[in-house]
Amino acid sequence: MPTTPSPLAPQQFPDLPPIAGVDLRVARARYKTWDRCDLTFVTLEPGTNVAGVLTQSKCPSPEVEWCRAALTLGEARALVVNAGNSNAFTGNRGRAAVEAIAARAAAHLGCKPSDVFVASTGVIGVPLPIDKAEAGLDAAFTAAPCGWNDAAAAIMTTDTFIKTAVATAIVDGRTVTLAGIVKGSGMIAPDMATMLGFVFTDAAVEPDFLQAALNAANRTSFSCITVDSDTSTSDTVLAFATGKAGNAPLSHVDDPGADAFAAALGDLCRQLAHLVVRDGEGATKFVTVEITGATSDKSAHRIARSIADSPLVKTAIAGEDANWGRVVMAVGKAGEPAERDKLAIRFGDTLVAENGLAVEGYDEAPVAAHLKGKEIDIGVDLGLGDGRATMWTCDLTHGYISINADYRS
Amino acid sequence: MPTTPSPLAPQQFPDLPPIAGVDLRVARARYKTWDRCDLTFVTLEPGTNVAGVLTQSKCPSPEVEWCRAALTLGEARALVVNAGNSNAFTGNRGRAAVEAIAARAAAHLGCKPSDVFVASTGVIGVPLPIDKAEAGLDAAFTAAPCGWNDAAAAIMTTDTFIKTAVATAIVDGRTVTLAGIVKGSGMIAPDMATMLGFVFTDAAVEPDFLQAALNAANRTSFSCITVDSDTSTSDTVLAFATGKAGNAPLSHVDDPGADAFAAALGDLCRQLAHLVVRDGEGATKFVTVEITGATSDKSAHRIARSIADSPLVKTAIAGEDANWGRVVMAVGKAGEPAERDKLAIRFGDTLVAENGLAVEGYDEAPVAAHLKGKEIDIGVDLGLGDGRATMWTCDLTHGYISINADYRS
Repeated sequence: MPTTPSPLAPQQFPDLPPIAGVDLRVARARYKTWDRCDLTFVTLEPGTNVAGVLTQSKCPSPEVEWCRAALTLGEARALVVNAGNSNAFTGNRGRAAVEAIAARAAAHLGCKPSDVFVASTGVIGVPLPIDKAEAGLDAAFTAAPCGWNDAAAAIMTTDTFIKTAVATAIVDGRTVTLAGIVKGSGMIAPDMATMLGFVFTDAAVEPDFLQAALNAANRTSFSCITVDSDTSTSDTVLAFATGKAGNAPLSHVDDPGADAFAAALGDLCRQLAHLVVRDGEGATKFVTVEITGATSDKSAHRIARSIADSPLVKTAIAGEDANWGRVVMAVGKAGEPAERDKLAIRFGDTLVAENGLAVEGYDEAPVAAHLKGKEIDIGVDLGLGDGRATMWTCDLTHGYISINADYRS
Repeated sequence: MPTTPSPLAPQQFPDLPPIAGVDLRVARARYKTWDRCDLTFVTLEPGTNVAGVLTQSKCPSPEVEWCRAALTLGEARALVVNAGNSNAFTGNRGRAAVEAIAARAAAHLGCKPSDVFVASTGVIGVPLPIDKAEAGLDAAFTAAPCGWNDAAAAIMTTDTFIKTAVATAIVDGRTVTLAGIVKGSGMIAPDMATMLGFVFTDAAVEPDFLQAALNAANRTSFSCITVDSDTSTSDTVLAFATGKAGNAPLSHVDDPGADAFAAALGDLCRQLAHLVVRDGEGATKFVTVEITGATSDKSAHRIARSIADSPLVKTAIAGEDANWGRVVMAVGKAGEPAERDKLAIRFGDTLVAENGLAVEGYDEAPVAAHLKGKEIDIGVDLGLGDGRATMWTCDLTHGYISINADYRS
């Protein structure tokens, strides 16, 4: 695991308060030959509701299948996260591991196995060792509760820094708090969710509304980031609401405070999604791709994704090269409505091309200066309609190759 | 431009015979600050028919638009290829450059401008200097004809070796010859054609049948390769048939010799497409991805592309890492019908996973040995139907990052 934090790591991390009804514990299951906590056991008080978004992969991990089934019930008592082994593509042994974990956690808590949510991250194709999982779970259960930073660290794989975020909202006259943790940092092109992200709130929220709010938050956060265009088999974002804040439960978008809660959830998810990009494997630049003037928001999103996924755009940014021709290429290959002679492109605040060619008297100096920074903005206006979208990505560097040409070995 | 040939360069190059009715000439237009031939002027005798496939990009170069219009007429007298500047996204000035080149060549030859085909490759966004193009064209017109290798060299950009191929067929009792040249080597994910490829034959072939045969050849050659998933604004493959072999013109798939001609054209295009992959930017491994058992050929092709485009699969191959879990990931993200528990995956001749998990007693040694070679085979059987497809790609290495993080600067 890299030990040097990404150059895009935040200068300071937020101080997350406890969330009433949530207890965090970590343990060393030693899924890899490392000496660090790699099993996280979150216990949730009775009455906690849950919502989730999961990978669209056709080859999902058994953890994803387990969560998908458990989500239909809407209630949660525990979350177990394993780091270092994704348990994906491991057949019956993988399924048995998830069932064993859920059963063990349920026995500790006196709840139903379907109240236990499980997520795993790491190498694909190696069955999760049940003995290590059970021993780790037992150790965690008897350990003292820990803080958010310890839990955020225990779910990391190739991540170089912990990723946490906090938000608050006023609901029904009470301040509700949302705290979230997430991990990346390769195989990141979530179509519905990112690798693993967990959000906890003390708000009282009915499962259906929690799911709707999470779907909406996801659409403008995790679904708008890409590190390497590769969608994981294990993408999972779960939101848990313990109800301990004592507000009248939110059940509909028109409920007082529902907007505030949804906005806070969206804000939290966007913070977490940005942190994943900032820890993208090998990343040295945080890139915002903003599309306007497309024929629809959906079309704008596809064009944004085409740019954000393009290895040629991403290597140009790594090289601090104002190669806007590659942005043209990426717009052109997206297959969405575009008219070359109406296109306008900017880097930072500088318009570089419009009406199908470079701007008259184009001065590259301010663009070159912008590209030397760590926060890069690319804007494309299609000039066709009102469709808009924003995606966030990082550059593609030698670091990505180094990390991924020998990650497993 | 790199001077060290790709490690995947062929050990020997074919000896291409002249094609009756085709004269090749090259000149120094000096589109970049280099001292090499970068303008190719091919003259074709009257009666030459032409077919072509062009990029699907929504931001095509004016050369692509020019060729698209000229192809509707089906006849050709000349081909002009400029290297070092793609002339794409250059507005009216770019269109004017193409018109000037066609007019100048037509004046030299006493033909219609629409008989002149033009293709350009290189940086996007800089108008092609008309004065340099015209001077280069004049110099080429008065130069002595050259051989295929000189023409293949003059169309290169970041290519590290020339790419030529030859094929023959018996048509109407006569041997017809096909010769082709092509260039890569980045921005290669042709959806209908590759960067620039040109095929010449002395066979007599009517334009409609030539187009149909080229479409078919393209579907199993240029459309089945990817270097970096980035589709160019200038992709162009043109096929010219001079008719000098004297065969009765081929006009229909049922004509005697039509199958042989189409097979030779397909063979030639596949050879050329493979050469593009072998010179993929930074490539050290030539990778064949073979999909079987998909629900349809189209579905198989999409799954093959998902694997061949995946940066995580490609970096694993670069690292000689038998990380088949990333192949599972790429199958899963393709969005095509797949059932995890029916999947089988092989590297080389070694089955590594089947029925949704690693094979019993999986021995990685033969796979590791296979991955140390330069020719890598990945096979995936979906176990669902008869759909099959093959794609060819290369690995993703530090060399790709180096080339593309400072190509333009």
